[in-house]
Amino acid sequence: MASKYKVAVVGATGAVGTELIRILEERNFPVGELVPLASKRSQGMRVEFNAEDIPVRMLDKDAFRGVEIGFFATDAPLSKEYAPLMVKEGCTVIDNSLCFNLEKDVPLIVPEVNSHRIREHRGIIANPSSATIQMAVVLYPIHKAAKIKRIVVSSFQSVSGSGNKAVNELSEQVKALFNFREPEIRVYPYQIAFNCLPHIDEFRENGYTQDEIQIALETKRILEDESLKVCATSVRVPVFYGHSASVNIETEKKITPDKVREILSKAPGVAVEDDPKKNLYPVAIYAVGKDESFVGRIREDMSLDNGIVMWIVSDNMRKGTALNAVQIAECLISP
Amino acid sequence: MASKYKVAVVGATGAVGTELIRILEERNFPVGELVPLASKRSQGMRVEFNAEDIPVRMLDKDAFRGVEIGFFATDAPLSKEYAPLMVKEGCTVIDNSLCFNLEKDVPLIVPEVNSHRIREHRGIIANPSSATIQMAVVLYPIHKAAKIKRIVVSSFQSVSGSGNKAVNELSEQVKALFNFREPEIRVYPYQIAFNCLPHIDEFRENGYTQDEIQIALETKRILEDESLKVCATSVRVPVFYGHSASVNIETEKKITPDKVREILSKAPGVAVEDDPKKNLYPVAIYAVGKDESFVGRIREDMSLDNGIVMWIVSDNMRKGTALNAVQIAECLISP
Repeated sequence: MASKYKVAVVGATGAVGTELIRILEERNFPVGELVPLASKRSQGMRVEFNAEDIPVRMLDKDAFRGVEIGFFATDAPLSKEYAPLMVKEGCTVIDNSLCFNLEKDVPLIVPEVNSHRIREHRGIIANPSSATIQMAVVLYPIHKAAKIKRIVVSSFQSVSGSGNKAVNELSEQVKALFNFREPEIRVYPYQIAFNCLPHIDEFRENGYTQDEIQIALETKRILEDESLKVCATSVRVPVFYGHSASVNIETEKKITPDKVREILSKAPGVAVEDDPKKNLYPVAIYAVGKDESFVGRIREDMSLDNGIVMWIVSDNMRKGTALNAVQIAECLISP
Repeated sequence: MASKYKVAVVGATGAVGTELIRILEERNFPVGELVPLASKRSQGMRVEFNAEDIPVRMLDKDAFRGVEIGFFATDAPLSKEYAPLMVKEGCTVIDNSLCFNLEKDVPLIVPEVNSHRIREHRGIIANPSSATIQMAVVLYPIHKAAKIKRIVVSSFQSVSGSGNKAVNELSEQVKALFNFREPEIRVYPYQIAFNCLPHIDEFRENGYTQDEIQIALETKRILEDESLKVCATSVRVPVFYGHSASVNIETEKKITPDKVREILSKAPGVAVEDDPKKNLYPVAIYAVGKDESFVGRIREDMSLDNGIVMWIVSDNMRKGTALNAVQIAECLISP
């Protein structure tokens, strides 16, 4: 590949697309030409990149010509239709739609964990779901040290995971309630303001949501351990940005909380914030805008012989989505 | 005891005290005389009960004379000081402060589960913590049917659990943020608006909070099973009223989700709301004002052979606190 790249961002005007373009700029990704693509609705809009004002182009087959790296910040139907077309044009696609994440010949990458799998791609590389990424970065070093057998995770996911429309909905519902008006309900089945919804993505036959199934299967894929057991409960909480997770792990080898803290303090992409005496633990609002997966409340699981409990927080728009995608691209172009 | 009772509510002007008085009225508890007690700060205030306007009296030793049932809706120091004094005056105390909850000669009661223990009291009966109550009501019938070996619970607790000052703090922080002002932080160590805090009550040496330890020990006491293993993570979420909980249980005997639903649909104090295809699952805002512990998202734990996962929601001010206390009093006076 060249030393500067023609990079397309599909879904350039959405929440993830905007963040992708910001992070490409922030990390000085060697972009020769940026091609922001979006649907008809966004025609006439422009995006700013490196002090340039670039018109958004319509997503069609011709838009891909010469593009070397294509970020898809789109829903599954659009990714399914256009990603293979883009690959045919010689482009490598990094997809955020989750629709390829469980396909065997599509590497599913968290660079701190399994960057060695990137080269196996056949044109498409998948970005894991945000709850998976922030957990995998923290669990991988523990898995190496003590072999994790089972994971129970309950996630506290912010509305930004559902895009700008959900950020607006939470905001509008709060305003309505504080002005004694009935809140409008559009994005979620119920009011999200001052409420918790145990429902992220669609329900499947086994009673799990697609997000919960995805967290389980993706974690096994990324940690490369088929014997790993994972049970997830995904909950939407009235937080704008930043996902949190309560995670219980059972390990084969005994590992102490001190040892976990020691290992994690050296782990790439992880920041330990864990000093209960000083009320120090990670919280969503302070993780926003930062790159790390923050971990605290590390303690022995008092219901198990070999168990550890922890609290993991990360900016779902950065490490959870856009930053991880850009890091994948960085690995891709590294010699 | 007489057919009408002289009832004191200590902490009558607080969030729990107010709810207690409302529920005593609502359930036609045979109150002959209501004695609302509070600290100096509340002097001059009045409470309404059965269309009467009753002046709040100051909490002192003399206030207890002739009182037969005393509800303590107070913090631990006040309960510790005054409950034994009240018992000396011949009164039976139902305490909400949690400070007696782990004492062996103080029955810890969830009426649907262990009302048979009430008679063992020596003057004080303890009301469990709210997260424990709503879970115990649901888990007890499952425990009887399949013997629960281990419980992993992550709770999503509303700010009303910290009293009116926390309800006001969430409200004021939201208003400040929506008016581009810096939110004031007083009740919790960090901003609670649009944030999640894995911190309820004080931290202990083992890295757990008092609330988490309490949930574990109380659940074992109430289900009367010392072999039960419980691990809790307690999280404060930006919800005004209604606690939710994500609960994973491991059972000795295999039990199917259908069987769990069948058992729970007949269980006292439990309401099953579980039809994912219709987006039916319990949520905090709809549990408010209701008496039941609502349960949904019942499914097999896919990381275990004998495991069930569920989502339990209840009005923490009612079943979680005041209603349960009044139900204890009802058992106490029943022949």
